[in-house]
Amino acid sequence: MLSFEQARDWLLQRAQPLAATEQVELLAAAGRVLAEPVLATLDVPPHDNSAMDGYALRAGEQTAAMPVSQRVPAGSVPQALAAGSVARIFTGAPIPPGADAVIMQEQAETADDGTVSFSQPACAGQNIRRRGEDIRAGQEILPAGKVLNPADIGLAASIGVETLTVFRPLRVAVFFTGDELVEPGRPLAAGQIYNSNRYWLAPALMRLGCEVIDLGIVRDSLGATREALRDAADAADVIMTCGGVSVGEEDHVKAAVEAEGSLDLWKLAIKPGKPLAYGKVGQADFIGLPGNPVSGFVTFQVLARAFLERRAGLPVSALTPEGPYPAAFDWTRPDARRSEFIRVRRVCVDGRWQLELYPQQGSGVLMSCAWADGLVRLEPGQAVARGDMLPYLPLVQ
Amino acid sequence: MLSFEQARDWLLQRAQPLAATEQVELLAAAGRVLAEPVLATLDVPPHDNSAMDGYALRAGEQTAAMPVSQRVPAGSVPQALAAGSVARIFTGAPIPPGADAVIMQEQAETADDGTVSFSQPACAGQNIRRRGEDIRAGQEILPAGKVLNPADIGLAASIGVETLTVFRPLRVAVFFTGDELVEPGRPLAAGQIYNSNRYWLAPALMRLGCEVIDLGIVRDSLGATREALRDAADAADVIMTCGGVSVGEEDHVKAAVEAEGSLDLWKLAIKPGKPLAYGKVGQADFIGLPGNPVSGFVTFQVLARAFLERRAGLPVSALTPEGPYPAAFDWTRPDARRSEFIRVRRVCVDGRWQLELYPQQGSGVLMSCAWADGLVRLEPGQAVARGDMLPYLPLVQ
Repeated sequence: MLSFEQARDWLLQRAQPLAATEQVELLAAAGRVLAEPVLATLDVPPHDNSAMDGYALRAGEQTAAMPVSQRVPAGSVPQALAAGSVARIFTGAPIPPGADAVIMQEQAETADDGTVSFSQPACAGQNIRRRGEDIRAGQEILPAGKVLNPADIGLAASIGVETLTVFRPLRVAVFFTGDELVEPGRPLAAGQIYNSNRYWLAPALMRLGCEVIDLGIVRDSLGATREALRDAADAADVIMTCGGVSVGEEDHVKAAVEAEGSLDLWKLAIKPGKPLAYGKVGQADFIGLPGNPVSGFVTFQVLARAFLERRAGLPVSALTPEGPYPAAFDWTRPDARRSEFIRVRRVCVDGRWQLELYPQQGSGVLMSCAWADGLVRLEPGQAVARGDMLPYLPLVQ
Repeated sequence: MLSFEQARDWLLQRAQPLAATEQVELLAAAGRVLAEPVLATLDVPPHDNSAMDGYALRAGEQTAAMPVSQRVPAGSVPQALAAGSVARIFTGAPIPPGADAVIMQEQAETADDGTVSFSQPACAGQNIRRRGEDIRAGQEILPAGKVLNPADIGLAASIGVETLTVFRPLRVAVFFTGDELVEPGRPLAAGQIYNSNRYWLAPALMRLGCEVIDLGIVRDSLGATREALRDAADAADVIMTCGGVSVGEEDHVKAAVEAEGSLDLWKLAIKPGKPLAYGKVGQADFIGLPGNPVSGFVTFQVLARAFLERRAGLPVSALTPEGPYPAAFDWTRPDARRSEFIRVRRVCVDGRWQLELYPQQGSGVLMSCAWADGLVRLEPGQAVARGDMLPYLPLVQ
């Protein structure tokens, strides 16, 4: 059996980051990975401007009652300041040539004759935001590799950038084999089960920003499986499926991948989990997750996800635990040989975080994964008594 | 001035959750809010089935060398077990009537005559997953109000559900006023600035699952602003804009909202932030954020976001801080009267989290918000010395 760390390292080494890029409009860029740094092409602010609503003047020429020679709203182009006068000015408006300070309106009083007097003397530079103070032309404002969030997009807009160069989405083809599988919404005959793996895997891939090529349920024959693999390899960067890769299974996935490419098959020392396959079909990577939905889901979270992230040019989620938090449960029958990823929920009780356990950890259905918001990794043989402090791995769903 | 808590409570009280629902296909349901609980319509597993690849038999009838009377792959419908025989069975396959135990294949040996002998005696019930063990028909498997994640969708699929009833998306209309505003990609004349608020606000709303109705830049006149407000109120649940709501501004938003509906205008005791407006135009809520992008962004994160979440039927982000973590910076000039939300980044140094500060907290551009991954709230007058333990509010972008 392969340890969890060995499998993760091995997979990550084989994840070749995408190189292909595309241009996207700003409003479609959230969540995409920046492929080239963004450099500022202008100074921000583009001109010295007022930090306040008030009056612009030349500090050395302040007098007791000053005429207002012009009005400068934001967006206007001021004239040179007339000697001995002030300009009415608003936040963000350019400072008129000749002015070197702004007095805020709260410190000003207007007389009947329209002249303005101030309760404070002006100091040169006061309440002026300088050109280039925030961003200088040429400065890198967003680094390559960054996953773009709303603030990044707003920042790019503020220097006039219209499109961004991002990595194209990773294309992942999925298919599901097993003549017992039925799509939801159809009636279930004896011996049949609903295909649940498609419905957690495709959304999980979409959440990672992947383009999903969904080949649906493939008939349980070697020929049909080989054909699905060839179609998938033509269209996708990565092919994923659930099931069909453990010893003795009534399935043709293993033989089909070996016939169309190459396959490494592992027994992992993790629970739930165990069978995991990695292969190549043409240029495409193949990842075979366990067929049991809970095993597949957990293996996706802790192993396949990291592979896909690196492959897509995303930063790899570090599996850095939070906490530790006290266990609100006992775990008395640990697995002697495998690391266990138990499904837990972090709850706040009397102002303190603690971890609750989904009671049926052995189940093959996704109740535990839907209920949980995190995992706790237990080492082989590790039991838990109520109150033990446990590191908590949040699920990213 | 209104405190942060007062403003948040006041806004949340006015956020009327959406009632309108719609049906969505499973694969389009991730991130949507479930409006009705999902009840199981069938038992899972639907029949007693094998937990192992192996041999099904009647425990009381085990003998030394047993003939194999049938083969039961997953998805097949087995016949009643012939007396004195075993059935070859695979994981997930239904248990043949008459059998009550499964012996795993690793404990079986096949002789030349095709009979099978076992290294262990079978115990009734062993390696059998019982019908309804994971989910019973009628059981609530997903509660109303849940934000659907991939595991939830997989779980719904596993009981055959084809569509889910979710709240319809919240419709938010945005517009931006100011004759100095220019869209990115166009040349900038003297006195003009790029409209950055549109480009962080629209993606932030989309990330919350809102349907954004983007009215773009509205001409700086009372008539145009009133017309935009009427259009927005016809189409949207909530109208949002940035700027135009503080005292003395060269803008018509305040007057236009008052003319078309009603407006409450506050000075908040937070920095960055300060002006915030809430009003009604027809049936629509109006939220006016500060025009400075950093103030607008922070106010959105800590105040408007909670309003929108409750309005959309989402759980309200609790602003529960993580940590505390040590400060890797000094903060020597606190604001005496306002709570400050400073932009920080959580970094791991030698295996310990610490908080770094973006150096230019006073800037109006979004560099600090793009750089940061969290906020620290400082109380009025609170200074920070390197090493002080500070609670950390992760930004949700």
